[in-house]
Amino acid sequence: MKWAMLGFGTVGQAVWHQAQRQRKSFSLGHVLVRHPDHYRQFKQVDLVTDPQLIIENPDVETVVEVMGGLHPAAEYISACLQRGKNVVTANKALLARQLPQLQRLAQTYHCHLCFEASVGGGIPIIHTLRDLVRRDRVLAIDGILNGTSNYVLTAMQQGGLSLQQALSEAQQKGYAERGSDLDLTGWDAANKLVILANLAFHRFYPVEKVARTEITDDLDIGQAAEHNQVLKQVGHIAIAQGKLKIRVTLDQLPASHLPAHVDGVTNWIQLTTEHLGKLSLMGPGAGGDATANSIWQDLLWLSDSQK
Amino acid sequence: MKWAMLGFGTVGQAVWHQAQRQRKSFSLGHVLVRHPDHYRQFKQVDLVTDPQLIIENPDVETVVEVMGGLHPAAEYISACLQRGKNVVTANKALLARQLPQLQRLAQTYHCHLCFEASVGGGIPIIHTLRDLVRRDRVLAIDGILNGTSNYVLTAMQQGGLSLQQALSEAQQKGYAERGSDLDLTGWDAANKLVILANLAFHRFYPVEKVARTEITDDLDIGQAAEHNQVLKQVGHIAIAQGKLKIRVTLDQLPASHLPAHVDGVTNWIQLTTEHLGKLSLMGPGAGGDATANSIWQDLLWLSDSQK
Repeated sequence: MKWAMLGFGTVGQAVWHQAQRQRKSFSLGHVLVRHPDHYRQFKQVDLVTDPQLIIENPDVETVVEVMGGLHPAAEYISACLQRGKNVVTANKALLARQLPQLQRLAQTYHCHLCFEASVGGGIPIIHTLRDLVRRDRVLAIDGILNGTSNYVLTAMQQGGLSLQQALSEAQQKGYAERGSDLDLTGWDAANKLVILANLAFHRFYPVEKVARTEITDDLDIGQAAEHNQVLKQVGHIAIAQGKLKIRVTLDQLPASHLPAHVDGVTNWIQLTTEHLGKLSLMGPGAGGDATANSIWQDLLWLSDSQK
Repeated sequence: MKWAMLGFGTVGQAVWHQAQRQRKSFSLGHVLVRHPDHYRQFKQVDLVTDPQLIIENPDVETVVEVMGGLHPAAEYISACLQRGKNVVTANKALLARQLPQLQRLAQTYHCHLCFEASVGGGIPIIHTLRDLVRRDRVLAIDGILNGTSNYVLTAMQQGGLSLQQALSEAQQKGYAERGSDLDLTGWDAANKLVILANLAFHRFYPVEKVARTEITDDLDIGQAAEHNQVLKQVGHIAIAQGKLKIRVTLDQLPASHLPAHVDGVTNWIQLTTEHLGKLSLMGPGAGGDATANSIWQDLLWLSDSQK
């Protein structure tokens, strides 16, 4: 399969590294970047600055978008789908706003839109959920979906750090993506919840309507600890009287409760269904390697579906 | 897809019930039972006592085996595969002894052997692991894999029951399958570990060689509790100096350790891989509905792969 890539940051480079180990015949064409000079050490990578070289190239079957941001990622992805190219993307902010439109484009032009890497880092939640809704009915979804805020809360509670100290630590370790405003405010978790709700309930919930509780300096960590409880940023999707409800809250979990022990950048997603009851997945919610792994799950699935 | 079923116990009936809700065109033919009189209330089900009606029927594409036991299940499954029929089975004891032979038969006769329901009840561990090994390298697997023994240990530690009391309770609730000797002795967990090891490492480990610690009356529950620890039957698969090692142990887990909070019939499986680090799945490890759900995952996958 001939593929190309938009963006070559941490995730893009990890995707490329994993490509080197794939025995299957995946042939990487152009990789779009803004400043080719920054990547001089990648001599074998065919870096370009003109997106049309990818969008208009009829040989490229699949495009991996890991540039992030709403624009111009949205325009590039739409253009690729309109030319029948499969798109694999990790862009949760974009999907939370345009998933139905992009899905419709993929359907119209007989190609696939894949986004395993958009939720839960390396956890295969999208494939699992997509598969599950074919044989079961989802009743609710709950999860710790933002690695940075979970890292920060863990460091504050276990390490006694202040919010600012914990955040700097997360940024030093490379977990906090460009600015932490999306993480601590619950926006990042809200984006992911909207994507999950779309798959589980086939309904589009405007991300602006997701109720969010922010993580701020005046969290009373001590008060929770006194009651042997742990503070976690948890996302909730539920159906109440036929209505979909999505919110990101700061929950005080008793220490006997399993997600109280989901620490650091680990993510945790619990599906409650009619026949299974509760099914949970837990794993690395951030990091280049984990996200690249999910992108490769999509690429391998696409390669299979072409056979 | 035309399918038939061998066995019609708790799991078989749950599979049939879920079939009623599938909109897809799955057409159920004969169902093999020993005593059709026992199932008089199932008027729409075409019960037969002669396996040849299924094995020799050229219209049957897929056979679901939920009769259990080594014989004659092994002979029926082999006969079906040799006629090019896909087989979906939950029979972990059989797979732990004959998986390589049965896989070879499926390959030779161009059909599929599916066994999602054999490990972890309703947890989609087989599909997840099969998919994961294509893009990552598994380093170790750990898990709470036997619902009955976990139920018994939970009841002994949290409810203060004796081993016998806890076991009767598990049997009353329908968790302990015919006799509990396979559960408490670790044989059931050993069977499941051998199946997982086969998928993860493409090696066959004789189930007789799995080291097992049994759950007996003289467990010192109090001593563990004093140290704020929890006793769990845990299965381990690891590679040490190139050698595969499988064992079922009674582990004392600190309460801060996540699997210490996996209670009752819930199963938990943790995959440690090169790129992801740790990925865990948790869900119902027993129960007709959960197991039937996994069998339907296989049936839907088979239906897709025929397109």
